[in-house]
Amino acid sequence: MKNFTFQNPTKILFGRGMQAKAGAECARFGKKVLVHYGSERVRQTGLLGEVEASLAAAGVTYLELGGVQPNPRLSLVHKGVEICRTEKIDLILAVGGGSVIDSAKAIAAGVPYAGDVWDFYCGKAVPEKALPVASVLTIPAAGSEASDSSVITREEDSRKYGLTSSCLYPVFSILNPELAFSLPAYQVACGTTDILSHLMERYFTNARPVHLTDGLIEATMRTIIANVPKVLANPQNYDAWAEVMWAGCVAHNNLLDTGRIGDWASHGIEHELSAKYDVAHGAGLAVVFPAWMRYVYRHDMARFNRFAVEVWGVRADYFDPEATALAGIAALKGFLVSIGMPANLAQLGARAEDIPEMARLATGGGKWTLGNFVKLDEKAVEAIFRLAAE
Amino acid sequence: MKNFTFQNPTKILFGRGMQAKAGAECARFGKKVLVHYGSERVRQTGLLGEVEASLAAAGVTYLELGGVQPNPRLSLVHKGVEICRTEKIDLILAVGGGSVIDSAKAIAAGVPYAGDVWDFYCGKAVPEKALPVASVLTIPAAGSEASDSSVITREEDSRKYGLTSSCLYPVFSILNPELAFSLPAYQVACGTTDILSHLMERYFTNARPVHLTDGLIEATMRTIIANVPKVLANPQNYDAWAEVMWAGCVAHNNLLDTGRIGDWASHGIEHELSAKYDVAHGAGLAVVFPAWMRYVYRHDMARFNRFAVEVWGVRADYFDPEATALAGIAALKGFLVSIGMPANLAQLGARAEDIPEMARLATGGGKWTLGNFVKLDEKAVEAIFRLAAE
Repeated sequence: MKNFTFQNPTKILFGRGMQAKAGAECARFGKKVLVHYGSERVRQTGLLGEVEASLAAAGVTYLELGGVQPNPRLSLVHKGVEICRTEKIDLILAVGGGSVIDSAKAIAAGVPYAGDVWDFYCGKAVPEKALPVASVLTIPAAGSEASDSSVITREEDSRKYGLTSSCLYPVFSILNPELAFSLPAYQVACGTTDILSHLMERYFTNARPVHLTDGLIEATMRTIIANVPKVLANPQNYDAWAEVMWAGCVAHNNLLDTGRIGDWASHGIEHELSAKYDVAHGAGLAVVFPAWMRYVYRHDMARFNRFAVEVWGVRADYFDPEATALAGIAALKGFLVSIGMPANLAQLGARAEDIPEMARLATGGGKWTLGNFVKLDEKAVEAIFRLAAE
Repeated sequence: MKNFTFQNPTKILFGRGMQAKAGAECARFGKKVLVHYGSERVRQTGLLGEVEASLAAAGVTYLELGGVQPNPRLSLVHKGVEICRTEKIDLILAVGGGSVIDSAKAIAAGVPYAGDVWDFYCGKAVPEKALPVASVLTIPAAGSEASDSSVITREEDSRKYGLTSSCLYPVFSILNPELAFSLPAYQVACGTTDILSHLMERYFTNARPVHLTDGLIEATMRTIIANVPKVLANPQNYDAWAEVMWAGCVAHNNLLDTGRIGDWASHGIEHELSAKYDVAHGAGLAVVFPAWMRYVYRHDMARFNRFAVEVWGVRADYFDPEATALAGIAALKGFLVSIGMPANLAQLGARAEDIPEMARLATGGGKWTLGNFVKLDEKAVEAIFRLAAE
């Protein structure tokens, strides 16, 4: 186990009706809130009204800023920064999924910074402080509700970069599984593929032994695998949604990183797909991750055997570990297809002729490698895209 | 899953050499620290010197208060409260195991309170604030290093009560597995039995479904079961100690309670043993817990089957769930005996003739019941003590 420092200050309020507590929680941080959201769906469902009534009841005034899109855009972040400065906002309350929360975090980091907040994303500067951010989560997926990270896309050049800083942990997040009941099935599948991917990125590590976190990650993966089919079959299944929503948060709150270093190559490869085709992040991951596995599994057959047996319930073939490893990868692929994810680049709407360019961009024109479990150069990334095309 | 609120603010600094960071971390909270510890062993091993050098290097002055005993005593807490008030201490740094940390928490709660801190433990008052507490952990066991609770014993009448309050979470805790290398084997066994017990108390719940936390608890139990024999066989096994130490912290930091209600009857029953005979808490639990299981397992055969199969690797007998459940309990018992724990009350040094009195005291003279999974009255507690005597 590697040395580590771990602290996650986010307060989680979990369960039915918890959105009614938003006002009282916000009031602990100030008197004026920016309510940040995506589409008008959150107003139509009544959620925005409930949250705003709770703010008013707690004596908190608020402004609204909607319009966050999937793969949240820098231009709206700039607009949010302006509003927060002009209106002297005390806290940004994101009502939505990971895109809305990521956008809120970007605004929060931008407000006290004299330069352009994009500096943080492209690595030119490091944020030292941020406005407090909080969330009412509507989509179990990105894990942003209890994470220290944010991903933003700059429209002009389709660059999509992430920022990680301890000042980005939300001060509180409200997780009510009922809010996920009305999600479209495809979005559920994309979101839960994202959760599974957060777990797999952490799982595939060269740190050894990491017995405890291996077991915790596997348990969280099994929870997703067991419960996603249930919520797809019956979107009103509160119990199954609760498992998925809490698992999605635990998957990405950094506890499962402790003492190990994750891989994150598949996320890097997928970013090229969502930047180029504006596909859902989860759908891109569903295509990339099994391809990545097929490319790297020989690097650590023991780990891929453990993945097959402990996560997917494959019966180990002790005399043919390669067969066991491949059965695990096949089980992942089968699961993803069964929940409605694309099986290859074509089904995703990506074109084979774009592969060389995407591989070049993903590795900065060959200037850097992706991943920690196995370091991938431009050629390796191209090979993985080719496997993803099959 | 039940509604819950979860927030654990404790910063964990984990790994080799981390005690050197004590000074810089303390300096974030003030300029004057009370270093609280137990026996002089921490001075002899050089740990106290290292920590104090780190404080001095960070410009933090300190006073020492040693002498905490297992089952920490109220009289020393009173003394600590006096010192903190007189000397205007900013933070209490516990260097030791759970007893030292629990004692530090009691002092911390007592300092800003006008009455006797015992009021908090016997339920007469609720703490609203406390001095910051931090720890350098030397014994993986109680989990106090990242918990919101403290257990103190009042010497005059051997009453041992717990206090839980969010103001008791340590602000930081340093976990260096190397510090556990020199622990005597019996203390290792007692401490890790305590960890396993914290997990089992949480595991046996009537909340259902609680898929994610069931899996997380099982993974943590398996980590203890796999690694304790390794540290007993080779006390210098850093990797195995790291697993045990991190598992001991995760076991009790309240994440594994989320959405469920634990049982805690075995802890209540054991408190009578350690109050009466001053035995180690873990040794008492080793005797009580399997007896409790034999008394209650018919209440939820499915859960006891899951415990047997998922935690102990028992092969399920689908046509005889009772046999499967009993095999799980036998496996727990066998494990505890294998690591050097007593098998019954006599081996613990307890007397059968004291059973009725202990059962009476444990239930307040029949005024209350123990446990949530199964509610135990005085008669039930007595029956469990009888099973523990076998």
